[in-house]
Amino acid sequence: MTVYLVGAGPGDPDLITLKAVKILNKADVILYDYLSNDEILKHASDNTKLIYVGKKSGEHYKSQDEINQLIIDEARKNENVVRLKGGDPFVFGRGGEEIIALNEANINFEIIPGVTSAIGVPTSLGLPVTHRGLSTSFTVITGHEDPKKEEKQVKWDYTADTLIILMGIGNIKKNTSQIMKYRDPKTPVCAIEKGTLPEENIIFGTLENIANKKIKTPALLVIGEVVNLYKDIYHSYYEK
Amino acid sequence: MTVYLVGAGPGDPDLITLKAVKILNKADVILYDYLSNDEILKHASDNTKLIYVGKKSGEHYKSQDEINQLIIDEARKNENVVRLKGGDPFVFGRGGEEIIALNEANINFEIIPGVTSAIGVPTSLGLPVTHRGLSTSFTVITGHEDPKKEEKQVKWDYTADTLIILMGIGNIKKNTSQIMKYRDPKTPVCAIEKGTLPEENIIFGTLENIANKKIKTPALLVIGEVVNLYKDIYHSYYEK
Repeated sequence: MTVYLVGAGPGDPDLITLKAVKILNKADVILYDYLSNDEILKHASDNTKLIYVGKKSGEHYKSQDEINQLIIDEARKNENVVRLKGGDPFVFGRGGEEIIALNEANINFEIIPGVTSAIGVPTSLGLPVTHRGLSTSFTVITGHEDPKKEEKQVKWDYTADTLIILMGIGNIKKNTSQIMKYRDPKTPVCAIEKGTLPEENIIFGTLENIANKKIKTPALLVIGEVVNLYKDIYHSYYEK
Repeated sequence: MTVYLVGAGPGDPDLITLKAVKILNKADVILYDYLSNDEILKHASDNTKLIYVGKKSGEHYKSQDEINQLIIDEARKNENVVRLKGGDPFVFGRGGEEIIALNEANINFEIIPGVTSAIGVPTSLGLPVTHRGLSTSFTVITGHEDPKKEEKQVKWDYTADTLIILMGIGNIKKNTSQIMKYRDPKTPVCAIEKGTLPEENIIFGTLENIANKKIKTPALLVIGEVVNLYKDIYHSYYEK
């Protein structure tokens, strides 16, 4: 018995890895989160048991403890169990908690990285998270912090050149006002709705005005000078 | 004519995306950097022209300007030109410079993100870059900064919970001593040599001693409390 923690990539079903496809092919059971595109499940065979454990910003169908227990139960009954997550299993995917539980239960596991939307979404658009002279570092954060995390309040004094905020919309007003304590309010910002999917949509703004724009979830925010570089490309290229 | 900037992933040839494979299949020309595994080129057809433009830490076979010009020249002669890079094209891959050149030359382009080694390598090992209560942010930087970048000296005061340094070995002594100005010298560090490849090797240490250990390039460094979490898993799991 082996549990495979598999990253499904950022949305476009073709942005899954070959390795993930091979493992989905042989899965007896797939426990999957909310996926931005269900096409990925087509790599499973007809006999594969599909279990939705539903995790989406704001929606928790099952608790993490329940999910951990379910994975362990399935692993004890099956040869190949897949735990499928959007993006990469360890970029705010709580995969760490699952492997700790598996390790304690003495269950074999393997992790298959995926293209995280934090990088894959801007990259696929032509928005470089690093660029000589403009950005030689980037920080990835979640806009949707653990509400229990009160003792250690999140400070938004991130010093990297580019900031990428996943699940960036729910707290956008609060978060951008925090960031403006440390960055110029005119810093360019780009919100990307439903990245790599047909419904993809891009909204430009600045730290001081992006919260006033209509942005649909799920969306991520890219903050920093690379956004201006991209704007030039976007306007001269995508609009011609 | 279209130029596809394609990410090859972190090393393991199965960690390339389905989309990348489809594009490699139809490529007329592939201009490729140093790849940690040449297996990936097997996705090209027999007629594909392969051009090595050799970019590796410390080795610059061609200048970036020469590479840009070569891509443009090939794009003018061929239908499908692939520019293949390790990891993701925009994570220290200088892909931004290439699309600016293509845009100015009025050449169509598309970018296919890849699994960056910055995340894919620690993930595949079971080392989570984010973990509830331990790390809710991570920063990716290069250890091998542009030597021309003297005016704006890099400050190592990155505030994210986890730091990931790509090309981490060449300047490891200098860089870790910089980081120790801002972080506890006892902060755990993990160096991963040749991540996701058969020769993969892991070396544990702390900010104050990692530079004294024998580490072979290419390697990346992961710095932060998640390394201790991983150490527990590593010892109880990988050594049993």
